[in-house]
Amino acid sequence: MMEHGTREYQAVWMEGSKLMMIDQRLLPERFEVIELTRASEVGSAIKDMTVRGAPAIGAAAAYGMALAALQGDDLRESAEMLKSQRPTAHDLFYAVDFMVEALKRGEEPAKAASRYANQIVEKCRLIGMNGALLIKDGDRIMTHCNAGALATVDYGTALAPIRVAWRGGKKLFVYVSETRPRLQGMRLTAYELRNEEIPHAIIVDGASGHFMRKGVDLVIVGADRVALNGDFANKIGTFEKAVLAKEMGIPFYVAAPISTFDFNTESGKDIVIEDRDEDEVLMMDGKRIAPAGCSALNPSFDMTPAKYVTGFITEIGVLDPDQITRVKGARI
Amino acid sequence: MMEHGTREYQAVWMEGSKLMMIDQRLLPERFEVIELTRASEVGSAIKDMTVRGAPAIGAAAAYGMALAALQGDDLRESAEMLKSQRPTAHDLFYAVDFMVEALKRGEEPAKAASRYANQIVEKCRLIGMNGALLIKDGDRIMTHCNAGALATVDYGTALAPIRVAWRGGKKLFVYVSETRPRLQGMRLTAYELRNEEIPHAIIVDGASGHFMRKGVDLVIVGADRVALNGDFANKIGTFEKAVLAKEMGIPFYVAAPISTFDFNTESGKDIVIEDRDEDEVLMMDGKRIAPAGCSALNPSFDMTPAKYVTGFITEIGVLDPDQITRVKGARI
Repeated sequence: MMEHGTREYQAVWMEGSKLMMIDQRLLPERFEVIELTRASEVGSAIKDMTVRGAPAIGAAAAYGMALAALQGDDLRESAEMLKSQRPTAHDLFYAVDFMVEALKRGEEPAKAASRYANQIVEKCRLIGMNGALLIKDGDRIMTHCNAGALATVDYGTALAPIRVAWRGGKKLFVYVSETRPRLQGMRLTAYELRNEEIPHAIIVDGASGHFMRKGVDLVIVGADRVALNGDFANKIGTFEKAVLAKEMGIPFYVAAPISTFDFNTESGKDIVIEDRDEDEVLMMDGKRIAPAGCSALNPSFDMTPAKYVTGFITEIGVLDPDQITRVKGARI
Repeated sequence: MMEHGTREYQAVWMEGSKLMMIDQRLLPERFEVIELTRASEVGSAIKDMTVRGAPAIGAAAAYGMALAALQGDDLRESAEMLKSQRPTAHDLFYAVDFMVEALKRGEEPAKAASRYANQIVEKCRLIGMNGALLIKDGDRIMTHCNAGALATVDYGTALAPIRVAWRGGKKLFVYVSETRPRLQGMRLTAYELRNEEIPHAIIVDGASGHFMRKGVDLVIVGADRVALNGDFANKIGTFEKAVLAKEMGIPFYVAAPISTFDFNTESGKDIVIEDRDEDEVLMMDGKRIAPAGCSALNPSFDMTPAKYVTGFITEIGVLDPDQITRVKGARI
């Protein structure tokens, strides 16, 4: 839950026939909840990152399909439209397919989408329980981007084990790499940790190696898509942390629900990496920070080969990369 | 030379009894030259990074000692004051000691300082010539921070081989990592490359590994201090690039004049790393970008062990890390 004032919030939820969503682009300066009634609005919110983080994108898309059904939109078109908004997060595709099947079976749209969102919350809670077993009292943990409650409806993926361990009384310190260009680490993860009073410090992305050498006990990140061989895509900068952790003998864990695993993608080579607008790098708060006439390359994700992964923290336990194929076909 | 309007500029230079300095904090938005007449003003300019980059800091300090002598200040106090402004860049100490000796010999202050600055320019030109031999037509080169003309009076260290290779007709592409928190890569290196029309793209620091895997032929960075065993300190984020380059089999070069080598420091463990104010991370252009109540750790440099270095590009050739001890004691 995100605390704000006296209330607690999820990243997305339904109120009657309206989809409510925290506008994550405005955090931490402003806490604003927007109302959506059309699937097309949900599509835009996914594309412009009003909602972000693979599991939360999945939940938003599930609700988007519910809105489409409630409004009598063409469901096939709505499904295609939603899937086309961002190419990397597997949950987006998983959630839309989940809803297509549920609606075919005649489930009530809002109820089916809520079921999907509630499942995510429960999965993240289990990820937290499983992951907390890896955390010792006094551990210094590094994370990247925001794989917290805001990214996942509630609890988080990478932050779930940290939350559960902290609530269980373990002393922790979290290094939060700021995550340029959009600073989700600084602006969202630090915000969530501060709200729970979990000790942490923001560092620039380039300082990760420096602090790993000074002493980090484990790295936990989220994922946007995991391939069958254990290669995975996550926010740009993840691959670097994985290589550095391996070089320094630090365990490197990926926390993700099985909905993020793409059993139809053999390896990382087949994962599409989204390139976003260069202005995300060159501008800050609407003002250009780069010299005139210079341009940027802005891949939103990178791919980390399985060999750098110590384990995948999932709702069904901590998996070795080579165990993923055994999960394929299991209905979870 | 830095072009601006119809004139070319160095990072620092004397006009009569005044020291002129480009205010690098204002670039690329504003090009402003400030005038300094007191050593204490030079000390402040070094501390607040009006002038930055190890060789340029050295030149500024040499001119600072000249101003102290011209003003009749206590030279020992001035030397201590200047040396205390920043702890990591070895050139600062080297330049002040150079001036103390020159003034003891009775050299004219401004002339001695100009001789020091001109030597740097010549050394950087030689670094350019030596380094250009490592660059092939069509190479994709990655650099970090600003080790360009602005950092070194003229030419640059890491940028010198790129300039010389480009002017010699080689086709190049330069990946410029933006270098948080102060963005010297984006704001200074990209600015210098654009002024010379050398093809380049700005990337966020966390994307370095991604682009190395896509294809980078060599990495060239500068240094603030090189220890006797080849360990070296440079802008935060350098260590990560060195580890990534090694992992991917990409040659990793450090371009630095011998004045950056500290023959009294045995290894990187003995190099003092400057921690700077957390507001450099948490604020942007005077506005807070981080959530209220969150803090940051802000080491300005990191240390890269010698084992990651392919070679040091110096004015006397490209040295293996284990050749550094042989240079000790040589007067260059």
